[in-house]
Amino acid sequence: MSYHSELAELVAACHWIGAKGWCPATGGNMSLRLDTETCLVTESGKDKGSLSDTDFLKVRLADNGVADGRRPSAETGLHTLIYRLLPEIGAVLHTHSVNATVLSRAEKGTELSLSGYEMQKSLSGQQTHLDTVPIPIFDNDQDIDALAMRVADHHRRQPLIYGFLVRGHGLYCFGRTVAEARRHLDGLEFLFQCELTRRLLEAK
Amino acid sequence: MSYHSELAELVAACHWIGAKGWCPATGGNMSLRLDTETCLVTESGKDKGSLSDTDFLKVRLADNGVADGRRPSAETGLHTLIYRLLPEIGAVLHTHSVNATVLSRAEKGTELSLSGYEMQKSLSGQQTHLDTVPIPIFDNDQDIDALAMRVADHHRRQPLIYGFLVRGHGLYCFGRTVAEARRHLDGLEFLFQCELTRRLLEAK
Amino acid sequence: MSYHSELAELVAACHWIGAKGWCPATGGNMSLRLDTETCLVTESGKDKGSLSDTDFLKVRLADNGVADGRRPSAETGLHTLIYRLLPEIGAVLHTHSVNATVLSRAEKGTELSLSGYEMQKSLSGQQTHLDTVPIPIFDNDQDIDALAMRVADHHRRQPLIYGFLVRGHGLYCFGRTVAEARRHLDGLEFLFQCELTRRLLEAK
Amino acid sequence: MSYHSELAELVAACHWIGAKGWCPATGGNMSLRLDTETCLVTESGKDKGSLSDTDFLKVRLADNGVADGRRPSAETGLHTLIYRLLPEIGAVLHTHSVNATVLSRAEKGTELSLSGYEMQKSLSGQQTHLDTVPIPIFDNDQDIDALAMRVADHHRRQPLIYGFLVRGHGLYCFGRTVAEARRHLDGLEFLFQCELTRRLLEAK
Repeated sequence: MSYHSELAELVAACHWIGAKGWCPATGGNMSLRLDTETCLVTESGKDKGSLSDTDFLKVRLADNGVADGRRPSAETGLHTLIYRLLPEIGAVLHTHSVNATVLSRAEKGTELSLSGYEMQKSLSGQQTHLDTVPIPIFDNDQDIDALAMRVADHHRRQPLIYGFLVRGHGLYCFGRTVAEARRHLDGLEFLFQCELTRRLLEAK
Repeated sequence: MSYHSELAELVAACHWIGAKGWCPATGGNMSLRLDTETCLVTESGKDKGSLSDTDFLKVRLADNGVADGRRPSAETGLHTLIYRLLPEIGAVLHTHSVNATVLSRAEKGTELSLSGYEMQKSLSGQQTHLDTVPIPIFDNDQDIDALAMRVADHHRRQPLIYGFLVRGHGLYCFGRTVAEARRHLDGLEFLFQCELTRRLLEAK
Repeated sequence: MSYHSELAELVAACHWIGAKGWCPATGGNMSLRLDTETCLVTESGKDKGSLSDTDFLKVRLADNGVADGRRPSAETGLHTLIYRLLPEIGAVLHTHSVNATVLSRAEKGTELSLSGYEMQKSLSGQQTHLDTVPIPIFDNDQDIDALAMRVADHHRRQPLIYGFLVRGHGLYCFGRTVAEARRHLDGLEFLFQCELTRRLLEAK
Repeated sequence: MSYHSELAELVAACHWIGAKGWCPATGGNMSLRLDTETCLVTESGKDKGSLSDTDFLKVRLADNGVADGRRPSAETGLHTLIYRLLPEIGAVLHTHSVNATVLSRAEKGTELSLSGYEMQKSLSGQQTHLDTVPIPIFDNDQDIDALAMRVADHHRRQPLIYGFLVRGHGLYCFGRTVAEARRHLDGLEFLFQCELTRRLLEAK
């Protein structure tokens, strides 16, 4: 798969995310791995619904450095962390939906447990609704380095798959390709809306 | 009614279903009866919002066999079952909406009773809001053969009409034509949203 | 105002109503007064989102009679009643939204009281949020003549303005022009959504 | 920044607001500062989703006077007040969303406190989700002069930033440019939807 076709898919995914309302007020950021040492990350402050392929910056995974003078998104450190921790991951989507924001606050624990939903199978490797998919929830932090360190610590104890929530903030999710990351995002957002509605209905 | 015009209507219905958000993450599957022995079913893993008429496979009703080497949807067995059980049925729509998913979990019994809604009359043969329309709910199962057997057993005791829910999974609904199946889907999804909202409001 | 420009506005309003999802499953019906003796009413079973001006039938207000052999909507009798009772009314919109359907059931009384909302001023003649706008709720009935008689009785005691709800069924609303009827519909649907959400939030 | 490009951005923002459903039934009004003495305000009764640049009137900040005979929006006095109180403000957006309307009623106090949300950073100057952003709520009033006086009094005690709610009515929000005002609106509406959903979930 060529880098150009993956970038075109990522731009299309950004437009779809914008239309879904999952990145309001220029929030969120998206990235694509180029190789073992670099990735492309969205420039800060751009509206995701109207991104083009010139709105991405080439960033070094090792130190978040950028070649030209442009400023990458503040949360670049979490994207590069994911690429360093998970060599098979090719794309990362960070979104701000109402459901991800609210559910990560309503759930006071350190993970959101998804169980009993057929849609769990939209997540690669899940075979049955009878299993439980735990989505880690990390407390939000304006210090991205500190947040990245907590994510890395968690990964050493329990390897990350699919994604994680940042409380009151949003979702990071990923996949080997843009298509897989997008399917994981679509599946997880569906599951968040189901889980939020279920909790309302069952007065939990 | 020609098979080509029905297929064109089914493709249009798939696009409408995609726009409604009732088949996220490439989920769901749709089919059309060709004759007493075969039907067309959507190929696995396709986005329903951008399907074309080449994304359907010809499947034998008797044994779910496919002529060429392509893979039909995993749930083909439920589509062919419906065509075997109900000779007058011409189209089957299987969707994954949030409302169908959550309501089929919140309702712990074996059916969802819809009553008091004028919209019940969007279901062929319903004459009044005073009647009760029972929509069967089957527990989800990754073994489609086993699930199909439970659906067939239920049908022998109480013939299926309009459709049924699979718990935490979604809706199967059908009609004599694509237009009728689509109207049943539209009506049922409206009724699910009403019923879910009513339960929230009346704290049931 | 010419009949042709009013009909064009009504067709545009139907497309807008279809896009809003307020007439699912070919439900609802719309009409336009032609003069003191006749009106145009939508033909039965048409999708409101794709109506054209040939989908209206000319109906006599006195007896719901139609000149040609086509079948007007089953609920034509309520449209002609409104034109007979209210000589200044020029357009009637009958819609089936989730909010109108559910709120008219959750409210067990004979009217929905709207109070404290600035948006009440979208209803012609309302000057302040401090007033209370009562929207009558009639129990649903498959006998349209019987329902029409109850509406007429109510009108003699308390004249209809803006519109009324039919329980578990939907809204009838109207105005002197299509534009006014549409603004009343837009305002009332907004108020229904507010009132439904307010009741959920305030656990009433 | 030229006045023409800012007006084009404001018209685009109005179309976006219309598509979001935040100005139903021709409600709401928008404005742009021209200089220290005048601003442009939307004419009364126009649909925001289809506004053009000829639908704005030039109004004097000092006395709400209009040069030609057209009628500015009834709430012009709040727009001009904001421009008089806050010399750096360049654009004001007044919208009527369901969430702003209902939350400003459900919250019985004199402000809505937003805290714990990353999205607070969409508001210029906010650095962390750990802070609390208070959005003042003023009781609604049909006497715009009296309401403006209460807003001005509040501003003297606690300077306005971002915007304020009018109970059961809607939101006024603003920024130095149209782009900033639009980002504040997008961020605040997101936060209102989160806060409303959080209160439902946490049964507060």
